[in-house]
Amino acid sequence: MKLGMIGLGRMGANMAQRLMRGGHQLAGFDPKPEARKNLEDKGAESADSLAALVAKLPAPRTLWLMVPAGEITDGTLTNLLRLLAAGDTVIDGGNSNYKDTLRRAKTFADKKINYVDCGTSGGVWGLAEGFSMMIGGDEAAVERLRPIFETLAPAKDQGWGRVGPVGAGHFTKMVHNGIEYGLMQAYAEGFSILQHKSEFSLDLHQIADIWRYGSVVRSWLLDLTAAALEKNPAMTGIAPYVDDSGEGRWTVAEAIDLNVSAPVITLSLLERLRSRDADSFSDKLLAAMRNQFGGHAIKKE
Amino acid sequence: MKLGMIGLGRMGANMAQRLMRGGHQLAGFDPKPEARKNLEDKGAESADSLAALVAKLPAPRTLWLMVPAGEITDGTLTNLLRLLAAGDTVIDGGNSNYKDTLRRAKTFADKKINYVDCGTSGGVWGLAEGFSMMIGGDEAAVERLRPIFETLAPAKDQGWGRVGPVGAGHFTKMVHNGIEYGLMQAYAEGFSILQHKSEFSLDLHQIADIWRYGSVVRSWLLDLTAAALEKNPAMTGIAPYVDDSGEGRWTVAEAIDLNVSAPVITLSLLERLRSRDADSFSDKLLAAMRNQFGGHAIKKE
Amino acid sequence: MKLGMIGLGRMGANMAQRLMRGGHQLAGFDPKPEARKNLEDKGAESADSLAALVAKLPAPRTLWLMVPAGEITDGTLTNLLRLLAAGDTVIDGGNSNYKDTLRRAKTFADKKINYVDCGTSGGVWGLAEGFSMMIGGDEAAVERLRPIFETLAPAKDQGWGRVGPVGAGHFTKMVHNGIEYGLMQAYAEGFSILQHKSEFSLDLHQIADIWRYGSVVRSWLLDLTAAALEKNPAMTGIAPYVDDSGEGRWTVAEAIDLNVSAPVITLSLLERLRSRDADSFSDKLLAAMRNQFGGHAIKKE
Amino acid sequence: MKLGMIGLGRMGANMAQRLMRGGHQLAGFDPKPEARKNLEDKGAESADSLAALVAKLPAPRTLWLMVPAGEITDGTLTNLLRLLAAGDTVIDGGNSNYKDTLRRAKTFADKKINYVDCGTSGGVWGLAEGFSMMIGGDEAAVERLRPIFETLAPAKDQGWGRVGPVGAGHFTKMVHNGIEYGLMQAYAEGFSILQHKSEFSLDLHQIADIWRYGSVVRSWLLDLTAAALEKNPAMTGIAPYVDDSGEGRWTVAEAIDLNVSAPVITLSLLERLRSRDADSFSDKLLAAMRNQFGGHAIKKE
Repeated sequence: MKLGMIGLGRMGANMAQRLMRGGHQLAGFDPKPEARKNLEDKGAESADSLAALVAKLPAPRTLWLMVPAGEITDGTLTNLLRLLAAGDTVIDGGNSNYKDTLRRAKTFADKKINYVDCGTSGGVWGLAEGFSMMIGGDEAAVERLRPIFETLAPAKDQGWGRVGPVGAGHFTKMVHNGIEYGLMQAYAEGFSILQHKSEFSLDLHQIADIWRYGSVVRSWLLDLTAAALEKNPAMTGIAPYVDDSGEGRWTVAEAIDLNVSAPVITLSLLERLRSRDADSFSDKLLAAMRNQFGGHAIKKE
Repeated sequence: MKLGMIGLGRMGANMAQRLMRGGHQLAGFDPKPEARKNLEDKGAESADSLAALVAKLPAPRTLWLMVPAGEITDGTLTNLLRLLAAGDTVIDGGNSNYKDTLRRAKTFADKKINYVDCGTSGGVWGLAEGFSMMIGGDEAAVERLRPIFETLAPAKDQGWGRVGPVGAGHFTKMVHNGIEYGLMQAYAEGFSILQHKSEFSLDLHQIADIWRYGSVVRSWLLDLTAAALEKNPAMTGIAPYVDDSGEGRWTVAEAIDLNVSAPVITLSLLERLRSRDADSFSDKLLAAMRNQFGGHAIKKE
Repeated sequence: MKLGMIGLGRMGANMAQRLMRGGHQLAGFDPKPEARKNLEDKGAESADSLAALVAKLPAPRTLWLMVPAGEITDGTLTNLLRLLAAGDTVIDGGNSNYKDTLRRAKTFADKKINYVDCGTSGGVWGLAEGFSMMIGGDEAAVERLRPIFETLAPAKDQGWGRVGPVGAGHFTKMVHNGIEYGLMQAYAEGFSILQHKSEFSLDLHQIADIWRYGSVVRSWLLDLTAAALEKNPAMTGIAPYVDDSGEGRWTVAEAIDLNVSAPVITLSLLERLRSRDADSFSDKLLAAMRNQFGGHAIKKE
Repeated sequence: MKLGMIGLGRMGANMAQRLMRGGHQLAGFDPKPEARKNLEDKGAESADSLAALVAKLPAPRTLWLMVPAGEITDGTLTNLLRLLAAGDTVIDGGNSNYKDTLRRAKTFADKKINYVDCGTSGGVWGLAEGFSMMIGGDEAAVERLRPIFETLAPAKDQGWGRVGPVGAGHFTKMVHNGIEYGLMQAYAEGFSILQHKSEFSLDLHQIADIWRYGSVVRSWLLDLTAAALEKNPAMTGIAPYVDDSGEGRWTVAEAIDLNVSAPVITLSLLERLRSRDADSFSDKLLAAMRNQFGGHAIKKE
């Protein structure tokens, strides 16, 4: 199958490469010449504009977006809408908010262009191990893309599926990431407790490695944690600063909209916010209050 | 009534003074000469040893302990046990763990000495405004102390009461402090949200002051918060470092022992722990994990 | 000053009455005849349509909205916009989302009508005790309304103030309610711990009453809690079901948007959601997981 | 190696069987005749008393305890202490609190009996897949037991290790279980959000199965969750009631003792407590408070 990949960053390039290894033909577009060059070196065609990319694809065309969620996705889609025709298919493989997906899908539906959302997990390991894909969209459109998904997935019939109508893929991926926050935080807290128990001088990497086999907490994230602890057991040089890329916030907001209490996912997000606020105003105010009512000493800044 | 006050720190000295203003006779003991001198200057007797203090009191004797919880309380009580006789009364007005109180009360009961626990709230404002007292102990023993409690309280029949058998006073005070943590944290978070909303340039002191009159969130803690914000609206020079003095931990542990989910009191304690951990290991590990699976950049320390 | 009150439900009627007691002239509109009749009985004029209400007011007109936030507010404002003229003033005293307020204010500004948002706290007690009001809007417009605010507030210069430009009033009120959630939850948890400590047979109403005087946790909410516990100490007949009216959700969302970690306010909201989910799917799944890995028994429904 | 297994419940019987499969000789004791019979049927010796068991073992003896933590463990150990001699080794493979382990180890050390604590994970799957073992104790003693651990583990050199001195094994296992609580809760919340999104009619088992391959959240617990969802996608007949067996509580207490903020592990425990409190007093009180200040309706029980 021939596919146009839009966005040749780390994720897009990896997916393109995995598809080529699986026998698919690839044409790629990215505004950065070096990203295009990189893809060409691996045997694919490249195009220096969306229009040129579209021209390289046989009808009905299949285009896979792997660009940052938000404005860039919107801009790209606006341009694509003008270039494509009824029967073509666009897949948004990025981390779009499912509400944006629902909105965008409508404009494509008006032109009878298939719009498919594919929540993609696997990170930098997807090239080697395959990607996990939660797909939303019209059944026939998804079925037509089967060869693509079978190649990107870890195995032909594993790690991918159409989970519902358009939007359902990104929704499911959003919740996936919310869970991911919770899992990560649970491990981080546990290892922090171990690390603080100085009387036992525990070797965190050893413990992570023991747990990888036979324990109830074994997981892929634990494998990665073990690797991180092996490389840098004391986390030297790493700031206690944890970024977030949006899906956690959306999950928390969605849970509340659905009247679902999700304390662990929510607190995992809040801990990330807290990690970036070294100068917490609320903690200063608490110290000031304690001083007010109890005369408790305030630590000076 | 004549009372021996043991411990003439801020709280003990204030209580002694309020009692004297109310017409009671006071004898005080403290290992620090300046604390004794301070009390004498206000018209009370002082003693330079527990034995000397006990000798100054008419039988049946009444002794009020206002010393730090834990070892100092235990040491003082061990000494008192030898000096007192059946019919005497010891009141522990400090922040003892109620389990310690139950244990200690038994050894006093063996010698027929009354043991009364008095959880005391009011902080540095108690001298002027009166103390809130939650009292545990034998009914008759507490009743005999009525003149003392009526004087220490904000009003004769307000702000004090026997809440149950020995231990019940300190238990109730412990939960009081747990609630206090939650209230403080709620205000601190709210003001922090206001402070971060830069587009409105809100004046936090003004808002606290508005809320003091007629609003649902008016409280004494809000009065103090308003005072703190008036003095130092930007919390300049105050480190975001919040201490805790134990009762919050005990409340959290007790809630869990009783199978009561108390998320807000619990999180209030955890936020204080978090405030003292500027170099969070768990946050470093989270950053390392994100780098492992997604190649996300790590902020350098 | 003459003021048109739109919405004569509990809050609107109380505010109208307090204004009349303070010497202001009132005209009121409500679609329900009995609400209008009720106001007339207290000596005010009433109107059976917005147009009729507007006609009863001298220019520049002052109209106070006290209607449910959301669609009803929007509908009323759309009608008002057609009826009012440059120089008139509309005050939204309800619990509108401040983002709606910003949007609505723009349409009024286009017609040079003053738009003032007034976050109002005090509940059913406001008539007797006065309302706490956080006001956003143009300085001159707010100043012109001074006689109104001075009358509604607990005292002439207490419990009200212009906190910033339009939107700032509702924003501040929103955070006020977020704090309220946290305070309430802290008390509820504390009393629940006391209630579960059966060995001490604590009298919750007595304890609440003791705390009202001299303690660090004294507050108006505690006064109300004491009243509730006096009337019904075992909470007999009350379902463990806690509603929410939106401001808590907005506060949580806003905190996250501002990157502020507000765990206590957030958990207070989640506990309310949890209280309404007697059939928690996540808890069922947890029970099923425990059974899967450890063979732990599942409780049957 | 010949080993005496004390406690032939599910875990003990499975471990005995795996050891026999690995070529070790087993003698077992359990007060229940059918448990002994069951072991005999698999080819091991059995004894109807601790003394008889000890008599069946060659010196230096090796005894593995797999009995419920707490009083039963203490009782068994008290008896063993009388029956064993210097050079013998006792391994506590159960979920003992590490503080109990430290206390018990001292009494065995006084008699020069080796005391080894082995935190064991793997649940009912350990027989087939091997157990994960975190071991504390004297280095030489642990080394002597190597053949046992190599057989019980998933692979010779995987899934087990001496993590530190006596106590360190149970400490590490305790934290392992704390993490387990957090992981489980994160999945449960995520699936609950998916389940509540009725507009997408998501198939939770399908999604769990997709995530098992290639996704960031893949894990053994997810495999089990997928199995549970396959068998009973709507969790029919399962009460939303989640038990806990102690290690979560200990982890929370230990984290607080170490001044480590572990919100996710803590909230996971609290949610379990909450799941067992269908008649929450705090929620009733919240409803009563809302009624007090705002006149909000109370739902009747």
